[in-house]
Amino acid sequence: MKQLENDTFLRALRRQPTDYTPVWLMRQAGRYLPEYRATRATAGSFMDLCRNAAFATEVTLQPLARFPLDAAILFSDILTVPDAMGLGLSFAEGEGPRFARPLRDEHAIKSLYVPDMAALKYVFDAVSEIRHALKGSVPLIGFSGSPFTLACYMVEGAGSDDFRHIKALMYSRPDLLHHLLAINARTVTTYLNTQIENGAQAVMLFDTWGGVLSTAAYREFSLAYMRQIVAGLKREQDGEHVPVVLFTKGGGQWLEDMADTGCDALGLDWTVDGAGARARVGDRVALQGNLDPGVLMGSADQVAAETCRVLDTFGPQPGHVFNLGHGISQYAPYDNVSVLVSTVHAHSRNQRRFAKG
Amino acid sequence: MKQLENDTFLRALRRQPTDYTPVWLMRQAGRYLPEYRATRATAGSFMDLCRNAAFATEVTLQPLARFPLDAAILFSDILTVPDAMGLGLSFAEGEGPRFARPLRDEHAIKSLYVPDMAALKYVFDAVSEIRHALKGSVPLIGFSGSPFTLACYMVEGAGSDDFRHIKALMYSRPDLLHHLLAINARTVTTYLNTQIENGAQAVMLFDTWGGVLSTAAYREFSLAYMRQIVAGLKREQDGEHVPVVLFTKGGGQWLEDMADTGCDALGLDWTVDGAGARARVGDRVALQGNLDPGVLMGSADQVAAETCRVLDTFGPQPGHVFNLGHGISQYAPYDNVSVLVSTVHAHSRNQRRFAKG
Repeated sequence: MKQLENDTFLRALRRQPTDYTPVWLMRQAGRYLPEYRATRATAGSFMDLCRNAAFATEVTLQPLARFPLDAAILFSDILTVPDAMGLGLSFAEGEGPRFARPLRDEHAIKSLYVPDMAALKYVFDAVSEIRHALKGSVPLIGFSGSPFTLACYMVEGAGSDDFRHIKALMYSRPDLLHHLLAINARTVTTYLNTQIENGAQAVMLFDTWGGVLSTAAYREFSLAYMRQIVAGLKREQDGEHVPVVLFTKGGGQWLEDMADTGCDALGLDWTVDGAGARARVGDRVALQGNLDPGVLMGSADQVAAETCRVLDTFGPQPGHVFNLGHGISQYAPYDNVSVLVSTVHAHSRNQRRFAKG
Repeated sequence: MKQLENDTFLRALRRQPTDYTPVWLMRQAGRYLPEYRATRATAGSFMDLCRNAAFATEVTLQPLARFPLDAAILFSDILTVPDAMGLGLSFAEGEGPRFARPLRDEHAIKSLYVPDMAALKYVFDAVSEIRHALKGSVPLIGFSGSPFTLACYMVEGAGSDDFRHIKALMYSRPDLLHHLLAINARTVTTYLNTQIENGAQAVMLFDTWGGVLSTAAYREFSLAYMRQIVAGLKREQDGEHVPVVLFTKGGGQWLEDMADTGCDALGLDWTVDGAGARARVGDRVALQGNLDPGVLMGSADQVAAETCRVLDTFGPQPGHVFNLGHGISQYAPYDNVSVLVSTVHAHSRNQRRFAKG
């Protein structure tokens, strides 16, 4: 097993001291980069990009060539999983994802199955190829959507602003929703374990929509299934610990519950105050986040100032990975990303120097 | 001054004992009611409905005729205010609001003014006429959008899912955004005071979009201006205290800060746990909320069960007004609203009986 040249990200997730705060950005390979748009134009559709390991590797590495990021993340989409379950995923240009066969009745939900991982071979091939292409420079992060977040898309059939179909199901046939979530949890566990076997050195669970639930419903319909997954993951591969990061957008009220799942780290959205989060979860978990992605729409000096402000809320203690509080916008100027990354590295080194006095 | 037949709502906002928990619903006059759709068809556009005091009165009273609700709320829209500032509001069918002249540069923002309240006379006429038509049955609630929420629409020019224009402004020219927010705060203060003078017996500030901000930005760009408004409101009219309710959707992490503004009550969205909220704010404020509006998409028995569950999180102590955690959906079956209202009244009477033991 080749040693990593830069293991700062993994060390921070283990809450070990690091010389500076590592940084990566959710959706760091994406439309804000002209080289991404060029590859995408060559590949065809968004899913053509995901399904081709060479293209997926190319776009995964693009942001690392531009910025000194401390981790790479598999280029893929959370909806590969329900697509493999036979729901018929497509992306209409400018419209977001859509499923041809959303789950709207008992028959559809009861017919659902844990898919053969062969249907997701293209993802695992991409993981292997990216890991190889990284040549031990920085760690590779694998990921999946959470069971509840996947269920939102599977039941709504597309994005939603009121989630009325899944809430109708939740509040009329909770048994059917639990059936669906249990299948999703088993699928995601296997999906992430196979990513780990193929080279993912950390994994992240994206619970994009858990925040649309009441506290009681979050615990019952989202958190319980993420806990199952955390318990079922391979936490060691090739002698190395594989950390798990849990991220619920809008989950700032539930950090204590999330920390109790046994995960290694919590992803924080940008509404959460870093110091408050640390006070609440103590040293049970590392924290990842949480600059407002909207800051990147501002001026370079404000990007630097806000980046320092966020770093200061977490302080120089071990156990922080810098990130945005949500995915980077396609409209973000990449020069601002450069400012962000260099500010994280420089200011966090200063924090440590100052802390040592 | 005629005494109210049912002052349960006002008593609960003053944290005085009541025989049962009062209930009203955000957007209770609206599209889920067939009688609303009929009036709307007669009136013409949504703004035609708002601008005609007779129609506004008719739709305000419709839900009270159907359900034993404990308060009426003025039928209007938060965007009447920027419309009066000359931004040119329209509602394209099925598309939401749009401004012809969004604020996108320094000149536009510096040209903004506190409008003459004469431009909003139709709102105050509706308040007077509704108050008269209620004949002292239940109290009338006036309302406004918060300065930040209004600014979101004024800068974005429409609804948004990333708020990138206002965030670009916030993180490049915060001085201009503060200029805009200060004008909005002065306008909203006068707007609400004029509603109070015309008959509103309680007022509510809707901060629909404060929850898209970081903790630091929420305090600086939303809460600070709501605090100014609370300080500037007439809190007594005709010898009666006029309570102020503050509602930030997605504000569950900031309840202590909100309670410190001097308001009488906090509106809670459905993600907040009632017991946790009460423990955090103590007896400084009343609490209003917070059933997930999505529950109304479910079965009648689940509506009743979830309504009881939410009531139980608040307990039988004085100072709770039942509501949804956000506006009712146009798709909510009105039979479920009937179940909700009767369950609130029946279960909350039982809670008090049981508490007395």
